[in-house]
Amino acid sequence: MTTGVAIGLLGYGTVGSAVDRLLRDRATEIERVAGSPVEVRRALVRDVTRARSASPAAGVLTADFATVRDDPTISVVAEVMGGVEPTRGYLLELFAAGKSVVSANKQLLARHGEELFAAAERHGVQLRFEASVCAAIPVVKVLRESMIANDVSGVLGIVNGTTNFILTAMAAGQDYGAALARAQELGYAEADPTEDVNGADAAAKIAILASIAFHTRVTLDDVPFDGIERLEAIDSAIARELGYRIKLIASAERLAGGVTARVHPTLVPEGHPLAAVEGSFNAVMLRGSAIREITLAGPGAGGDETASAVIGDVMTVLGTSGTGFFTHDGYFRQVAIVPEAEVPSAFYLRLDVLDAPGVLAQIARVLADEQVSIESVIQRAAAGRAQLVVTTHPAPEGRFFAAVNGICTLGVVAGEPHVLRVLPR
Amino acid sequence: MTTGVAIGLLGYGTVGSAVDRLLRDRATEIERVAGSPVEVRRALVRDVTRARSASPAAGVLTADFATVRDDPTISVVAEVMGGVEPTRGYLLELFAAGKSVVSANKQLLARHGEELFAAAERHGVQLRFEASVCAAIPVVKVLRESMIANDVSGVLGIVNGTTNFILTAMAAGQDYGAALARAQELGYAEADPTEDVNGADAAAKIAILASIAFHTRVTLDDVPFDGIERLEAIDSAIARELGYRIKLIASAERLAGGVTARVHPTLVPEGHPLAAVEGSFNAVMLRGSAIREITLAGPGAGGDETASAVIGDVMTVLGTSGTGFFTHDGYFRQVAIVPEAEVPSAFYLRLDVLDAPGVLAQIARVLADEQVSIESVIQRAAAGRAQLVVTTHPAPEGRFFAAVNGICTLGVVAGEPHVLRVLPR
Repeated sequence: MTTGVAIGLLGYGTVGSAVDRLLRDRATEIERVAGSPVEVRRALVRDVTRARSASPAAGVLTADFATVRDDPTISVVAEVMGGVEPTRGYLLELFAAGKSVVSANKQLLARHGEELFAAAERHGVQLRFEASVCAAIPVVKVLRESMIANDVSGVLGIVNGTTNFILTAMAAGQDYGAALARAQELGYAEADPTEDVNGADAAAKIAILASIAFHTRVTLDDVPFDGIERLEAIDSAIARELGYRIKLIASAERLAGGVTARVHPTLVPEGHPLAAVEGSFNAVMLRGSAIREITLAGPGAGGDETASAVIGDVMTVLGTSGTGFFTHDGYFRQVAIVPEAEVPSAFYLRLDVLDAPGVLAQIARVLADEQVSIESVIQRAAAGRAQLVVTTHPAPEGRFFAAVNGICTLGVVAGEPHVLRVLPR
Repeated sequence: MTTGVAIGLLGYGTVGSAVDRLLRDRATEIERVAGSPVEVRRALVRDVTRARSASPAAGVLTADFATVRDDPTISVVAEVMGGVEPTRGYLLELFAAGKSVVSANKQLLARHGEELFAAAERHGVQLRFEASVCAAIPVVKVLRESMIANDVSGVLGIVNGTTNFILTAMAAGQDYGAALARAQELGYAEADPTEDVNGADAAAKIAILASIAFHTRVTLDDVPFDGIERLEAIDSAIARELGYRIKLIASAERLAGGVTARVHPTLVPEGHPLAAVEGSFNAVMLRGSAIREITLAGPGAGGDETASAVIGDVMTVLGTSGTGFFTHDGYFRQVAIVPEAEVPSAFYLRLDVLDAPGVLAQIARVLADEQVSIESVIQRAAAGRAQLVVTTHPAPEGRFFAAVNGICTLGVVAGEPHVLRVLPR
């Protein structure tokens, strides 16, 4: 370990150049603590001649993937180029060439994790992915390594900074459009924020976390999700009145019939560790049989933050290679995904109803017929109509939505029903 | 790696028996994920004949340390017996016998870390200690492994659950004595709570964390600490009025002239991640150049929680043995400890003063003479005397305490001055 370790990069953008810079900035510590210097030997880019703000050492940049794959001095490659293709193919070729890979690519892992992990194991190399979920918040390492003595019962998180920034602004009274515009202005939201605000980004992350937590493969297709686009300022205000904050919660739970992973805007009770997570920060709560619960919080995005996680993974690959520990595919179980309709949830239901005698009784009757138990009711009159907000105790989602459909056929509701999940106090 | 791994235990009390039980409960996962079964082969106890609630396999218990030390099948020993002697001597013998050690013993590490780490390195074995700080909250692993690409600027934490339980009760209006009694009743405080309430326990933990964070040896003797015994309910109430919570904060910071590690009851602004940590929970905030900040929170004590951390460390030892990574002594720097008097702090000062014209002006003059700048003043009259509360901007501690001494000689203050630190908003 005295000759130094060479690594390859796929991509030399914000994250890739930060990996290179941080490895140089921290060369002394890395060599002392890890036992060996580590340097970037090759970095794959589209165009080596393009002007760059960060300048790698001469000869590092290459536009030819084979130069990285076939360099015999490189044992670990960090994939920070993103995208599903050709990235997936590159990873398969790297594994076949005997190289371990560290990836920051959540969409790739959530879609093709099964194939990629199997290929890595077949070739006796590692695939690590801390940076793919919440950047530098070390949730993957903690779940896999620190919590190995735990039967994990649940993972609950705020794993998308864009939506948490918007929800924080909405909690302060802004409406959705203004909050999104502000997030874009500050760089917390992309010009096209779809993947963030519709919950797809969070869904990919919770698919990855659910897979690690339960040792079974949960893919993006297994994760129902909805986003925050239809949320109104009035829901934030009412949530607050009821003692809750609205957060986009990604959750994975072990239930009697299997596991569930999903993403929904959710009322989180004040005092819950996730209620206090503000702005673009992320937080993940891990529940285990031995540790009760651990919450990890911090910035869930950023170039240096992601690069920090990539380097931590590179070090872990180097530090565990050849020992056979923590290098196996941990997804050895086949656990059923519980059908959405059977997953129990508590709900918040806001309806615009006729302000007439008997309306509440009719609605309560429909809920009771579906065995959905009411926890609280708020009703406010406004010019012949009333705003009715019902919160329920946990019930199978299918029963609740059957009740909502039934309520909508009563002829007393105007507009769309507004539905949010509620975390238990 | 197919024949199984044998480990030894020093101690088979609450934590030791939980390690044994959890290894058996989680045998499938550990073998699948880690690549090998792991079992307890020997456990050192004082009396093998004593009746125990947990029953180890036949032949595991021994009262003879040499049986553990000389068992050639054991490569890792978990030290969960506590105490400084003979534990220290046992560890040195184990290292010399080529065995790695995982320890949950904060007092031992904070006092004799330098000797122990040097001995482990000399013999080419590892000493890991996750369980010594905040039980299952993986702060050591995250600092050492996940944050290796970071220049760490500070560690700030609530690392003692007993005091946080008491402070939470005091924030709700209880006085110190009643809160302590309640903590003892519920098992959150020992019959003799001295080490917890006087800050010594927290000081040992922050010494360990400061050492890892700054790659320099910080021992218990380097850590000034004070506890919560003299805290009064009125301070909790005034802190709340000012928008703060009082917490026992253990902090380690890198300053211009070196590093500082200390433990003080401190006003933490509401909205700060540590302000919301309630009851017996612990939380640690890690600040680094690449990751900005990460906060880890959870139960900081408990048998299963500690055992979970011990097992995580055992796995990490097994999973990194022979690679040379993360096995070196990370304390390769000699960084000065900044003298207490030069460490800048913001302060809260509560004084019982004469309710007479000019008193505040005199006090303000003394503070100004020491170049301590006032941030806020609250004065409340009560029967010829007044309660005066001053908060200051950060100033070198020596200057502030010189000012307090000066104020006490003015002849306008009754009783002792009440001093707390204040975290910046």
